Amino acid sequence: MKRVKLTVAYDGTNYCGWQVQPNGITVQEVLNRHLSELTGETIETIGASRTDAGVHALGNVAVFDTSMRMPGEKFSYALNQRLPEDIRIQKSEEVPLDFHPRYRDSEKTYEYRILNRRFPVPTERFYSHFTYVPLDVEKMRQAAAFLEGEHDFQSFCGAGAQVKSTVRTILDTEVKREGDRITLRIRGNGFLYNMVRIISGTLMEIGAGNYPPEHILEILQAKNRKAAGPTAPARGLTLVGIVYKEKETL
Amino acid sequence: MKRVKLTVAYDGTNYCGWQVQPNGITVQEVLNRHLSELTGETIETIGASRTDAGVHALGNVAVFDTSMRMPGEKFSYALNQRLPEDIRIQKSEEVPLDFHPRYRDSEKTYEYRILNRRFPVPTERFYSHFTYVPLDVEKMRQAAAFLEGEHDFQSFCGAGAQVKSTVRTILDTEVKREGDRITLRIRGNGFLYNMVRIISGTLMEIGAGNYPPEHILEILQAKNRKAAGPTAPARGLTLVGIVYKEKETL
Repeated sequence: MKRVKLTVAYDGTNYCGWQVQPNGITVQEVLNRHLSELTGETIETIGASRTDAGVHALGNVAVFDTSMRMPGEKFSYALNQRLPEDIRIQKSEEVPLDFHPRYRDSEKTYEYRILNRRFPVPTERFYSHFTYVPLDVEKMRQAAAFLEGEHDFQSFCGAGAQVKSTVRTILDTEVKREGDRITLRIRGNGFLYNMVRIISGTLMEIGAGNYPPEHILEILQAKNRKAAGPTAPARGLTLVGIVYKEKETL
Repeated sequence: MKRVKLTVAYDGTNYCGWQVQPNGITVQEVLNRHLSELTGETIETIGASRTDAGVHALGNVAVFDTSMRMPGEKFSYALNQRLPEDIRIQKSEEVPLDFHPRYRDSEKTYEYRILNRRFPVPTERFYSHFTYVPLDVEKMRQAAAFLEGEHDFQSFCGAGAQVKSTVRTILDTEVKREGDRITLRIRGNGFLYNMVRIISGTLMEIGAGNYPPEHILEILQAKNRKAAGPTAPARGLTLVGIVYKEKETL
């Protein structure tokens, strides 16, 4: 028996998110099915991040256990032969049997893309949020900086989340404009339900001039979802990658 | 009566190219239909570039004549309300009645995108050509430079083209690598059928080390399609834009 870690990229457009659910096809379900066919075992993967419907990933992480005698690094090739074009394993490797993708210290990086111009660009419609309202990136950058560090992010937590604590640490933020493309990058040790999308929606309101950058502090203090801006659309969001810290240092 | 020029962006994935044809839906056909509905007239647009099935555009150009009393610049807004999400007018403007998008001096810019890494990235699968064969961009750049200037591009002309002359001028070329993304940009005063895709396919063979960069000169001299490399897939190609030179200088 061995545990294999998969780094999974997907186009979330046609999926009801990552996690298996009764009302629609999910990335995890497709992965489980092809892994079960490949191994001849009943495989249920454990995922690191339960991305929402329409959210994309370059590097989500999942693990599974198998008795199949295939070297860990070969699973990427074998799976990519079977998976649909909108899911591609980027890497597979054997990990210790106690490696759990959620109960481990990790850093996740998310990217939210905004297309800010007069009219939408068809080839980017599934991978960025379009707005013609001119956004001031400098203001968004200032506002994002207020989010760095350890804070209670309850105001940025979507309804329906079941968590003990809404305290999280954002390690760094970056807001960049290249022509009419704005990219927001956030790295943190954990994110609440819809947190990056609510942050993105709030930063867009600040970029549009509806509130000054310092308004972020009031939102944090309010500890109330209604104090923050709208949840930005899923299509703009990509889970870029997850880095795990070493557990053992000998 | 006035003539209106449209700058049209589209995702070519789901179209049988630009030009109206009996065997499938085309961008021009969809445009004609919505323009006819909008104006209450029978509109047939004239396009600048007859892009192939699967090829994308950021700035193809089309003109049409109408008696509708709407200012030229308003057609973009009115059309975008009606068009499907994969076609978006970027600009509309009134032009002189004798403005013809093909019989005018113009410069076209095409971009061919290659994703060069171990495994494909699902979110880019419709907008770039994937290859895991490592490509040497410096060799591709040297090879591309040999194509600049006026040449007989018969070796780079797809079968079935009906043209009087296969002489064209390439104004400049650029081959750029950013991480695992390679972008080839070509600007010229006119392109033969499949020319940019055959150039891209040939440059990829040179980048892979199958031929030295100077081999491009032999291909040009051969004046034979068989001397060049394969036609690169349509999905990697985008018509970036068309710039028209002023006709009248007073």
